[in-house]
Amino acid sequence: MSILIKDVLAVLEKGDGLAVEETSIYIENDTITDIGDAGRSADTVIDGRNKLAIPGLINNHTHAYMTLFRNYADDLPFSRWLFDKILPAEDGLAPGDSYWGTMLGIMEMIKTGTTCFTDMYIYINETSRAVDETGIRACLSRGLVGSGDDEGGRRRLNEAKSEIEYWKGKANDRISFIAAPHAPYSCDDRFLLKVMDFAKENNLGINIHLSESRNETAEIYDKYKCTPTELLDRLGVFELNTLAAHCVHLTDTDIDILADKRVNVVTCPVSNLKLGNGTAPIAKLAERGVNVCLGTDGAASNNMLNMFKELQFVTLIHKGKEEKADVISAEEGLRFATSNAAKALGLGDRIGKIKTGYKADIAILDIDKPQYYPRNNLLSALAYSTCGDEVSTVIVDGKILMKDNEFMTIDSEKVKYNINKIADRLLK
Amino acid sequence: MSILIKDVLAVLEKGDGLAVEETSIYIENDTITDIGDAGRSADTVIDGRNKLAIPGLINNHTHAYMTLFRNYADDLPFSRWLFDKILPAEDGLAPGDSYWGTMLGIMEMIKTGTTCFTDMYIYINETSRAVDETGIRACLSRGLVGSGDDEGGRRRLNEAKSEIEYWKGKANDRISFIAAPHAPYSCDDRFLLKVMDFAKENNLGINIHLSESRNETAEIYDKYKCTPTELLDRLGVFELNTLAAHCVHLTDTDIDILADKRVNVVTCPVSNLKLGNGTAPIAKLAERGVNVCLGTDGAASNNMLNMFKELQFVTLIHKGKEEKADVISAEEGLRFATSNAAKALGLGDRIGKIKTGYKADIAILDIDKPQYYPRNNLLSALAYSTCGDEVSTVIVDGKILMKDNEFMTIDSEKVKYNINKIADRLLK
Repeated sequence: MSILIKDVLAVLEKGDGLAVEETSIYIENDTITDIGDAGRSADTVIDGRNKLAIPGLINNHTHAYMTLFRNYADDLPFSRWLFDKILPAEDGLAPGDSYWGTMLGIMEMIKTGTTCFTDMYIYINETSRAVDETGIRACLSRGLVGSGDDEGGRRRLNEAKSEIEYWKGKANDRISFIAAPHAPYSCDDRFLLKVMDFAKENNLGINIHLSESRNETAEIYDKYKCTPTELLDRLGVFELNTLAAHCVHLTDTDIDILADKRVNVVTCPVSNLKLGNGTAPIAKLAERGVNVCLGTDGAASNNMLNMFKELQFVTLIHKGKEEKADVISAEEGLRFATSNAAKALGLGDRIGKIKTGYKADIAILDIDKPQYYPRNNLLSALAYSTCGDEVSTVIVDGKILMKDNEFMTIDSEKVKYNINKIADRLLK
Repeated sequence: MSILIKDVLAVLEKGDGLAVEETSIYIENDTITDIGDAGRSADTVIDGRNKLAIPGLINNHTHAYMTLFRNYADDLPFSRWLFDKILPAEDGLAPGDSYWGTMLGIMEMIKTGTTCFTDMYIYINETSRAVDETGIRACLSRGLVGSGDDEGGRRRLNEAKSEIEYWKGKANDRISFIAAPHAPYSCDDRFLLKVMDFAKENNLGINIHLSESRNETAEIYDKYKCTPTELLDRLGVFELNTLAAHCVHLTDTDIDILADKRVNVVTCPVSNLKLGNGTAPIAKLAERGVNVCLGTDGAASNNMLNMFKELQFVTLIHKGKEEKADVISAEEGLRFATSNAAKALGLGDRIGKIKTGYKADIAILDIDKPQYYPRNNLLSALAYSTCGDEVSTVIVDGKILMKDNEFMTIDSEKVKYNINKIADRLLK
């Protein structure tokens, strides 16, 4: 199978930076095999005029099933949000529910140009099934909580292990796995060491929530007399390739540690604002060379899984926080959502760029809209003038998942029908 | 002429609050004359199923012509943005150019559900012409700068006066005017007094930039030994109905003054972030009962004229700034963009609400999209899950300006053609 995206404006690598150039992109099977030759014949030709092709966005921190709780518990103090609304609703959740929630999340991600996501959840077999069927790419993890050598913790580790074994070599390797100790406050130090052993045995990286709230840093300090970052560092967690989500409340020492240990920081600006946690020191982290990535978090605290929204926020809020108009440029933000994210997943030589030899994970935007006139800097336009809805065609692993706004692998009516049914049961 | 929007979900007044209810809306000529009766016959019937009708949004601070500079000068320190890029480009601007820039701005605003905007600019005859032709509603002002009784200041006041007289009674009264001394740093105290006399003579309110940057507050302190807000208060400006745009850097005394003198504060969150100015103390102002409104500012510092983007930012950034998830709710944000804005313009009994007797200024959103499932709180959805692109039909003053994403009063190809031609000349 071959696809030619003909005469398209494309975001390409140019030296160390990005540039927008008019070109044509040739895809054979799952791979980009040529950039530039518009004359080749292909099984499918996509007319690229008035379109902008970008590397598919990578949402490096989410809980996709939580679309079920979208717009359900907003404008509430954190504890009421969690204890009065989200946890009781989750109590009623069956594994099949989370499949449909994840399907809705994948629909929304594809619709807004995301081609790969990193997920943490309980029923990862349901998540894997949705990823397999829809054709999107994902890095999945069974959220692990535990204390010492407790029975629950051991059971969860075994579940994670059997999932990883089941999916090995399936779905054209679009699914990868990562070990996910939930957070320093929900896993004690002894359990964290067990998860590290598990990760090493299975050659996995680590996906963890870190320093999301002031409550967390206070709780960890009470228990361990150090910051959450210092705790993980002491335990040796950062010797493994780590994705640390949030990192809102950091000391200068924490920033030093994250930089020195090459921890990948996944910032979720909208979720951090919405839950009243604050704003992570991303300008400082980026300046220190930390590999920063971007995520939406779950739809209960966002309430979208739209990476263009995150891109708007991450490129704007730090300019305000630092009172400097030149921090976190449009290009830097785009890197957070593409090549930095790929690197964090250990896939830096396969996804995150439109480049010969890379996997064909591409989003195509319709830029014949008022917000793209006049045509000045189109990299700027991606950060400052794009909503996400402009994405019209999405290719993952060389397969067209959405064409001219029509889903090719998802029965969207069926998803919406099931979502409404589940919401009626859980939330009314 | 009559329009029936049949079986639609609509944002309606409910006691002191807002509620979403399924209903039908009947419009005769320029006015909403009935809410509830789906059985009436009408010249035009709009099928409201899977749609959400909201009061048209009011963008209470912009410079619409600046779409010409969209994505032209981003990620630069403020002084390079202004002196190296924007001012030289503006030097080349002819009045006809600003007409096309304004047309593009109006296209973008209609496309994203804005039915009324407050504009400040030089060539307001060009702006008025664009407003008249497109059918949108606007409050216009000739930006006034001056020093004492200087010739330039007098000329600008005369231009403003003749424009107001020319448009009196035209365009079905969709155009209103306001006096616009540009800012305390660009108008000295004596000129501000002259503008106040002009406003009183012509029964106008005041539209002014206030405390946008730290430079401004420092400069005013050097010259007058007080804050910009204290200066305007001393001069008596706030005895007139005042729209104060930005208000980023305020002291506690400033907040007291703005609250006591019932000044309308127009916050432009995206512009303030993008230029590195910071974040206005909106939670505090709202708590003090200040009438807060919302604006995009110009597209050179945003880079969209999309009020849903502002709504996302204003409902999220203050939760982060105050570290409280329950400040500036979705409903409060919607008020900023509708009824508060109308009140600030002295039009609180005519626009900003879907209500019998009010002008028919309505935006209709297509909510059959992933981000609106499941259907929980649709007021939340407007703030937290809407991009703007969902708007499909827009009515202003009882006239359909966009129907199913097609502009009815604007030749969009002609606008885009002219915008590209002007941008080629000005910016290349």
